[in-house]
Parts: sequence; C-alpha cells; structure tokens
Amino acid sequence: APAASVATTGTATPAASGTAGTAASSSPAIAAARPASSSAKAWYEKIGIRGYVQMRYNQELGEDAKDLKSPGDRFIGREQGFGVRRARVVISGDVTDNMSIYIQPDLASTPSGSSTTHFAQLRDAYADIWLTKDKTWRIRAGQSKIPYGWEDLQSSQNRIALDRADALNSGVRDERDLGVFAYWSPKVAKERFAYLQKSGLKGSGDYGVIGFGVYNGQGANRPDRNDQLHSVVHFSYPFKFANGQYLEVGADAYSGRYKVSTASTTIGGRTFTPGVDAPEAGSTDRRVGAHVVYYPQPFGFQAEWTVGKGPELDLARRTIRTRSLRGGYAQVMYKFDGGFGSLIPYAKWQTYRGASKFDTNTPRMEVDELEAGVEWQPSNAIELAVAYANMRRTDVSTAPHRKIDGQLLRVQLQVNY
Amino acid sequence: APAASVATTGTATPAASGTAGTAASSSPAIAAARPASSSAKAWYEKIGIRGYVQMRYNQELGEDAKDLKSPGDRFIGREQGFGVRRARVVISGDVTDNMSIYIQPDLASTPSGSSTTHFAQLRDAYADIWLTKDKTWRIRAGQSKIPYGWEDLQSSQNRIALDRADALNSGVRDERDLGVFAYWSPKVAKERFAYLQKSGLKGSGDYGVIGFGVYNGQGANRPDRNDQLHSVVHFSYPFKFANGQYLEVGADAYSGRYKVSTASTTIGGRTFTPGVDAPEAGSTDRRVGAHVVYYPQPFGFQAEWTVGKGPELDLARRTIRTRSLRGGYAQVMYKFDGGFGSLIPYAKWQTYRGASKFDTNTPRMEVDELEAGVEWQPSNAIELAVAYANMRRTDVSTAPHRKIDGQLLRVQLQVNY
Amino acid sequence: APAASVATTGTATPAASGTAGTAASSSPAIAAARPASSSAKAWYEKIGIRGYVQMRYNQELGEDAKDLKSPGDRFIGREQGFGVRRARVVISGDVTDNMSIYIQPDLASTPSGSSTTHFAQLRDAYADIWLTKDKTWRIRAGQSKIPYGWEDLQSSQNRIALDRADALNSGVRDERDLGVFAYWSPKVAKERFAYLQKSGLKGSGDYGVIGFGVYNGQGANRPDRNDQLHSVVHFSYPFKFANGQYLEVGADAYSGRYKVSTASTTIGGRTFTPGVDAPEAGSTDRRVGAHVVYYPQPFGFQAEWTVGKGPELDLARRTIRTRSLRGGYAQVMYKFDGGFGSLIPYAKWQTYRGASKFDTNTPRMEVDELEAGVEWQPSNAIELAVAYANMRRTDVSTAPHRKIDGQLLRVQLQVNY
Repeated sequence: APAASVATTGTATPAASGTAGTAASSSPAIAAARPASSSAKAWYEKIGIRGYVQMRYNQELGEDAKDLKSPGDRFIGREQGFGVRRARVVISGDVTDNMSIYIQPDLASTPSGSSTTHFAQLRDAYADIWLTKDKTWRIRAGQSKIPYGWEDLQSSQNRIALDRADALNSGVRDERDLGVFAYWSPKVAKERFAYLQKSGLKGSGDYGVIGFGVYNGQGANRPDRNDQLHSVVHFSYPFKFANGQYLEVGADAYSGRYKVSTASTTIGGRTFTPGVDAPEAGSTDRRVGAHVVYYPQPFGFQAEWTVGKGPELDLARRTIRTRSLRGGYAQVMYKFDGGFGSLIPYAKWQTYRGASKFDTNTPRMEVDELEAGVEWQPSNAIELAVAYANMRRTDVSTAPHRKIDGQLLRVQLQVNY
Repeated sequence: APAASVATTGTATPAASGTAGTAASSSPAIAAARPASSSAKAWYEKIGIRGYVQMRYNQELGEDAKDLKSPGDRFIGREQGFGVRRARVVISGDVTDNMSIYIQPDLASTPSGSSTTHFAQLRDAYADIWLTKDKTWRIRAGQSKIPYGWEDLQSSQNRIALDRADALNSGVRDERDLGVFAYWSPKVAKERFAYLQKSGLKGSGDYGVIGFGVYNGQGANRPDRNDQLHSVVHFSYPFKFANGQYLEVGADAYSGRYKVSTASTTIGGRTFTPGVDAPEAGSTDRRVGAHVVYYPQPFGFQAEWTVGKGPELDLARRTIRTRSLRGGYAQVMYKFDGGFGSLIPYAKWQTYRGASKFDTNTPRMEVDELEAGVEWQPSNAIELAVAYANMRRTDVSTAPHRKIDGQLLRVQLQVNY
Repeated sequence: APAASVATTGTATPAASGTAGTAASSSPAIAAARPASSSAKAWYEKIGIRGYVQMRYNQELGEDAKDLKSPGDRFIGREQGFGVRRARVVISGDVTDNMSIYIQPDLASTPSGSSTTHFAQLRDAYADIWLTKDKTWRIRAGQSKIPYGWEDLQSSQNRIALDRADALNSGVRDERDLGVFAYWSPKVAKERFAYLQKSGLKGSGDYGVIGFGVYNGQGANRPDRNDQLHSVVHFSYPFKFANGQYLEVGADAYSGRYKVSTASTTIGGRTFTPGVDAPEAGSTDRRVGAHVVYYPQPFGFQAEWTVGKGPELDLARRTIRTRSLRGGYAQVMYKFDGGFGSLIPYAKWQTYRGASKFDTNTPRMEVDELEAGVEWQPSNAIELAVAYANMRRTDVSTAPHRKIDGQLLRVQLQVNY
C-alpha cells in the first residue's frame, strides 16, 4: 500500500503516477512540476460507480413444481422465499485516452462450501487497451464475457426474460473467463451498438463486429486445469433499415478441452464413479452458435441456436464421453411506451439436448421451457417483471437426475443505480 | 456487462438508461436527443460512499473471564488480540425522485467453514420506493433491518454501548433479513428522526411511525428453509417536549416459523442429536418488544423489554421444543459537550432468559451483564470507547453450554468516513 | 443502518455527523443549523477510489519447471493458464484534518476451503490519526503493513520484479497484521518519501523515519492465537545527494511468539504429526533486517538481508523447533525514459535458508533464484513486465517438500486506475 503519502497529498492518485497528484502543501516542488494534462482529471471524472440489484420470488404452481431445479435461478425449488439473484457494483471508466477499465463484483455470491451467502465475488475485471485513435481496434485482457452467444453477452440488467437459455448458457460458466481478446468495431457499428443499449432497446453492447481470443476454459472464477487454452471467434453486425428498424445477425464458435469433475454417484441402483474417455488435457468442448435479433420497435423477435460436442455422462457405459449437443430459443416481444414508462410483454421458448458440463459427472440435461411475462419499467431505475413459466427440466444438480415437469409464477424487482 | 459502449461513451450510465448518458463524440444523435432532466446528474451526485471501521481489544480480568463467549463480540475469550469488529462501506443515494438505494457490505466477515477472515459480505441491499410525493409512504424491498427492537435498528456506528443486548438481538440474526416492507412517516416524525441522528443524539433513523412487512425468517445472508414467511409490525413515535427534550416510545412484534439446526452433541455424559418437536415448516418463533428512549439532552435513559416463544433445547427430553423467553436492558447516559468534543459516560444492565435459536441445537442462554463505560468523540470522525463489563453468560457456542462469570476491560476505536 | 433519513436528506453523510449533511427540503431546521466547516466538503472530495489489476501468464521451460511452486505466485506450476494475481480497490482520504483512512480490499482472494475464487478480502483497513499540526507524528490503527523489510512496504503496484523475495516476505503473512503503530516523519523526509513515489522512482511510501508498534502476529486476515502481541521497530532514511540522487538506508526488527499449524504428514516413508517444542504461547519468532536502495536515476541498486530465528520442522526428530534463518536479495535496474514511456530492465537475485512458517508443519525452505526482465510503462496506467526466471525452490506446500529446479518465462500486465 502506498501508505501515508497518499493520505497527506491527495488520495485518488495512482501511486505510480508522476503527474496526476493533487498538490500537497508539503510538496511544492511536485506541485510545480505538474503539467496541465488530461490525467489531472479528478478521480470521479475518470471512473464511475453504478450497479443494479435483482430480487426474486418464485411461486410453484402445484406439488410437482417444487422439485424443479434450474441452473439460472437457485431460488426455484422447495422451501424457498425471497432471494437476491444479483447485486452488482460496477467500477468503470476511461482512465486514459487509450485504456479503460471495468471491474464488477457481485455482492450476492457464495464461496463453494459455505452455508452463508451474499459475499462479494468478481464477475468482470478487465482492461480495454485501444490500439487506434479512432478506437476501432482494442485488446481486452482479464476476466470478461466470452464472445459466444448474443444473450450471454447482453447484460442481465437489460434482459427481458428472467434467465438465459440453457443451450447457449451451458457453454461458458457465468458467461466469463480469463483471457485475452481482440475486438474490431468500425465507427458505424460502434454507434449502433451504443444506441441499441442507451435507447432502451436492450442491445448487447459492443463486442465487436469481429472478435476473437483465447481463454482458460474452466469458467469464471475457476482456476485453469490444463495447459491448453480455449479459443473463440465472434461475428455480429447491426443493420439499420431505411425506416430506422435495427436488425442484428451474427455467429460465433469456440473450441478447447474441458476438464470435468467426477465423484461417486448412485444411479439406477448402481454406485460408481464414472471414467472419463478423454486425453489428459480434457474432453473435447466445441460449439458454434448463430443469432438474429430484430429489435422491438415496437415489435421484436430474437432467436439463437447452437450445436456442438462436449463431455456427457453415458449411463450405460458409466463413462463420460464426447457427445453431440444442440438447442436454442426464440422470443417475441412488444415494446409499449407511454406515461406509465415502458411495458414489454414477451414470450420465450427454449430447448436443449446435451450435457450440463459444469455439474459433477456432467449429466445429460433436457430442457423444454415456455415462459410468458411482462416487464414494466416505470422509470429508468426500476423494473418489475412478472412471468409464468412451464418448465420441463432434468435436475442436473442431484443424481439420479430426474426429469421434472412443473409450472411457476415468477416475480423480479430490479433497481438500477 | 454493458461492455465497450460504456467505456467509449461515459462510464457511469446505467445501461438501461435512455437519457442519462454522457455525450460521446461518436454518438452525436444520442447527445442531441438527451433532455435536460434530473437524471442528468453526475453519478457522484446521485450516490455517495461512506462508512466506518471498529477495532477492538478486550482484556480479561482474571482467569475465569478467559472462558467467556459472547455472540456480540468474537474477540472475547481465550487467546485473542486486536480485532476488526466491523468494516463497513455504504453505497447509498436518491437515484431518482422516487427511488433510493442502500447497499452496505461489511469487509470483516467470514464465510462459514473458512479459517481466513475479512471477506466482504452484504449487510444491506435494499431499495426504498416512495409511493407519495411527500415521501410519507414507502416500500422497502431487499435485505434490510427487520423493524423489531429499537437498539437493533440503531446503527452500530451510533450505539454508545459496545454490543446490543442479547434479549432483543437474539430475535433476528444480524438484525436483518430478506423481505418486503412498508413504512409510514408523517412529515413531523420524519424531521425528528432525521434530527435525532444528525444532532449526535444517536437516534435509530427512520423506520416509520408505522412499519410492517414479510421476510424469509432465517436471518441475514441465509437462504430460506421453509415455504412460510415471517411477518413483523412496528410502531415508534418521537415526541418533542416544549423544552426541546425528545422522547421516543414504541413497540413491535414478529411471528413466523424458524427452522433450527441440530447436530450430535455430548452433554452430561449423554451423546445425542436432539429431536425437534415442531411441524415440518419449523418451530414457533414469535416475540413482542417495547422501547422507551429519553434522549441525552444531556441526561438520557433508554430501555427495552421483550417476551416471546421460540425453540429451545430441553435437556431432560433431549428435544427442541417451544418455550418462553424474556429479557431486556436499561441504560443511563450523560452527554458532555465541549472543546474536547463529546464525552458520554454510560451504564447498561441487561438480562435474558431464553434460547439462542441461531446456535446449533438452540441451547438455553442465560445472560446477566452490567457494563459501565465512556465514549469520547474528539471529532465526528473518531470515537474511542472504554468500558468495564461484568458478564454472567452461558457459552452457547460449545456444549455442554457452561455458565461463565467474568470481568472484562473493553476498548473500541471507531473511525467514520 | 441509518435507514431512510439518509435517503431523504443526503446520502454521503456519516450518521454520527452533526454538521456535514446536505440540506434536505424536509429538514429546513437542520439546514439552517449547518455551519460552513471543512467537513462540509462533498464525499468525493474527502475520499478517493483508485486501484490496480495484475494479470499473469507463466510459461514453464522444460518438464522439470512444471513441478515448481512459489509462495508469491499461485499460477506457477502444472496446468495453469491466465491468472489474476491482484485486483485491488483502494478507498482512502483525509476525512478530517487529523484523521485519514485507507481501506483496500483485494478482489482476487479465495476463502480457505473454497474451490471458487476471486472473492473480496481486506488487505488494509486502517486509520492514521495525526498527533501534531505539522503531521510529523501519527498513530496508525487497524490492519496495515508491518514495518519490517523495505520491499514488503513497497506496493506491488510499484515493484519492478514480479514477486517479493522470500527471505523477507516469509516474516509477515501478506505483509500485514492487525495492530497499533506510531510513525515519525519530519518534514524533509515526508517530502522525499512522497517524491520517491510520485516521480516514478518506485519508493515504498512513508512508514516513518522511525516506526514502532504491536500487532497480533499470525498474519493478515487470521485471528490471533495467543495472548501475546508481536512488537516491531523500524528505521529508514531517504538521503538526497547534491546531484539529486536519492539513497535510502534503514533497518528493522520484530519479535513475538508464533503459533504453528501441524497436521499428519508422510515424509520418507514415515507418517507422523510433528510435535512442537515451544511454550503454550507459541514458537520464538524474531528477525532483524536491513535495506539499502539507490534509486534508479537512471541506474539503481537495491538490496536487503535478514537473519533471525523461527519455528522449523526438524525431520530427524519429527519436531518443530526453533532454528536460525537467513537470506535476502540484490537487484540492479536502469530506468530509460522517452517518448515510449518508461522502460526498466532489471535483474534480481535472491536466496533464503529457513522455514516457511505459514505452511503446515513449517517445512524448511531453500530458495535460490535469479530473475531478469524488463518492465515497460507506456503510460502511467499500463505496465507490461516480461521476465525470465531460474528458480531452485523447495515445494513447501506439499510433503515431502521436494527441491525443484526449473526455468520460467513470466509475463504480467498491470493496469492502474
């Protein structure tokens, strides 16, 4: 820690900075040497703090629904009350003309093995280093979202539906990993990406018209477990029609080797620890995805599909081996604006046939779900979403991985600050 | 994450906001469309960051005192040195005219099962949504203090005595839970609640003249464990006499079903896991409390009492069953103000007869304690408290739950920022 | 929590403050009573927020290197990818004329026992209380760096080499502990300490020309385990020659009793839990160190040496007993400044013969390491370091504590904000 000099001479100055310090009465020589540069901006002009909190309540409709488990919402299931799904604080800013940072802890996370919750854990911690004056090319280094899947890149703060679709979201744990990426966004695309977010049309933000990179591959906040990196490539383009209507289409793909976790389990009367039919470096893990988003002006449509291969428990052989997977979703929505704010009714259908590779023994997961609801934004700061969901899902968290069918009433209050 | 558009077009803007963005040179159309609204305030005008840190040192007087254990201070007992009791950071603000947020992590918390400490864990994460222009009615949603007990609602930053009284504090773990509440404060009460805090009279803040709500019931940062909510109702009124003296009186009550934790234990030579004599939804858990606070202008007096029913280990039957509980405290204090700052000598007596429901097997807890000390505030930013305590307490953390008698010298340094 | 009054009357006001509140429309009486004092500064003028993130990638050169383990970098070894070594957020500031705070969580920490990472854990949480108007004397209370060793006091944000030398760094876990300290810095030294940091010369900050104090002794974020405190004393003086060249020399020492951790282990075919040949209060733990730093203007030289006694596993006797330790490092560096920023090639040699007291069973640790690299700072906000290291190290984390020899290519990207 830079210690007392910080306390006596102005507190917001990076210790390594030679120019940005506040003048201290005890250091006149330093103050005199300080040039009037852009780095003389106050700390609160260089970085900003904002965030959002999501609070949920799920009501199971009927006894069957109480056995439902969903990776996207740990408050679904038996003996649940209110839950804080996300409590985010974002520290971000353009620190210099060519470097921006983005640090986002979540304050509703739980260390593995702890029975107490709501600890602060990183989601994002990355820097964007701009390679060109016009900011078309940048390097992103750190823990950040992996550019695979459109909905995975869209912030949960902006998503209309309560959870992401499992087919896409089962690719990258918490949508993020640690790596180095390059993004290219020409000026026209950059402006459109920005507009689609700021306008309330719920864009995904700017992950480049072209993006590519390498990353560890075991998911956010997990150490790597092999000496190989995953690689990813991403394309997305926001078209704008003459009438002002936006349409975004794109595709992406990733490939690497994933190390699965196994443990003794009992399924169908047999107790076994599955073998893993894969090289030392891990199981084949690769996917391609495609997306189309017709923005709600006022009617919108959104769909994604993915296919790939990944590790999956083969019960007959008691072995985890490489198998195919496929799935996606389609969503329709309509945006009403008025004195009441913004009201967006929507319906989302999703399906998935493939493994849940993050879970112990990577069980096969089958999902068929229909959710219909409405999101109401009385102001920019408050969102209330109410939805009815008809779920048919494998319980991937507990052997013997039963398939459960049930209906839920779901409510979410989100506040933005 | 809202990604690069944030970095290129101003960093403090909630992604969902249609109006608040900083103008970006690459987005002239957006800048032009930005109306001059109140949401155009800079992020640091909308939210503020402050906090406080409490550091403690307890010196046991005599050998017996080394076996003391107290739920309010984990640094009491054998082989203890300095301790950080609380390290708080508060992010709060009036985000819009009708929504305020309050997010408070504690940076001196420990996940269950970890031997390393000082992790960041939420205390508060709530939004106040104001229902009327005059801000008399509001809904509070999220994790917040449960309006039961006056001292429980008063911030530890403001409390004169080192710890809260166990009789009241054993009702709601960490004073908080996840739920939805309504508070009503007419203008005159709102002004008085604010004055009692800002004046240094150490008020509890505004939890309404009337407050009521529902919450999970297992305590802060713990998942719910049944399908029933607890409910609470709260009354408190700050009277002001003609001579300027303030007097606050009130009462509150809560009711619900609490799920206890049991484990194998050895007491009196018998090893057993207690049974629980309660329905599936949990044990009866209900209390009423009353408070009176005569503010120190300069002489002050403060007392609370609670009675109720809750789960308690019945050793004879090796069963946890519903039993009565009662207890409270009385405190006198005197506030000297002068060039030296503020000096408040105080004496606090407390008693409790009832269970410690948060602890494994919910053992019976008997507390009789007298603490006398003085709090010195040389400035608003620094508080030094020195106290002598005579404690007679059950060790509820370890079977066989012995009763310990001992004396302590206690010191706390608090800094506010 | 100070509750709603905060939300309605200005959010950045410490609840205990009688003077600093923002005027609230609902509290005219309070606004009128507010004097124009220095505490009326806005919250963002009183405190500042800044930080830095370090991302690493190590490439082992040859098969042997894959078995290397180093206390300073958990991303060295088999099956590693990218890693976030540090993700720091600093909240600091001069809260009043005589009190400053410094609160620094790290967002890349892991609770013991958790397999998920990147949780927020305190590094520093202290207050400086200035005893004199000229700020030469201060008391520092809280968790802070222990003034032993020069490199230990220098921020990792400023260090040129990737990790600290083990000889010095094995004295105090995470360089910090909880305690109370006094520091004395006369005006001339204070100005030099400040200049050495701000100028990019990578000073250690101001830990006084003289410093001394007492602390728990088990390391940062660990509870104390005995009723004795460690004590420390520290001297350092920054000389300035007529030609402007700076030279800092000093020495320090600490002494106390350290409680070791033991567990069953298997070494050389024998399975045993070592006994501890020490009193109940813990093992003898004392060291002296000396440092000399010739600042890089442009050529620099830096060296430290330490000797002492501490607990060490004696394999022959299967006992942990007090043994001597010694070690240190020497470093040369050269600072090139130009249009490309700042470029600092360096070479660092270190050696250590003594125990790793933080590790289970306190095994003996032998280190001989040579690192040569270059740090490039294109701007104040970005640092890229590339180094080649030849390590010969005992693996102190896993019995039988083999000695490993290997070469590494190391890369670190650091961003400051």
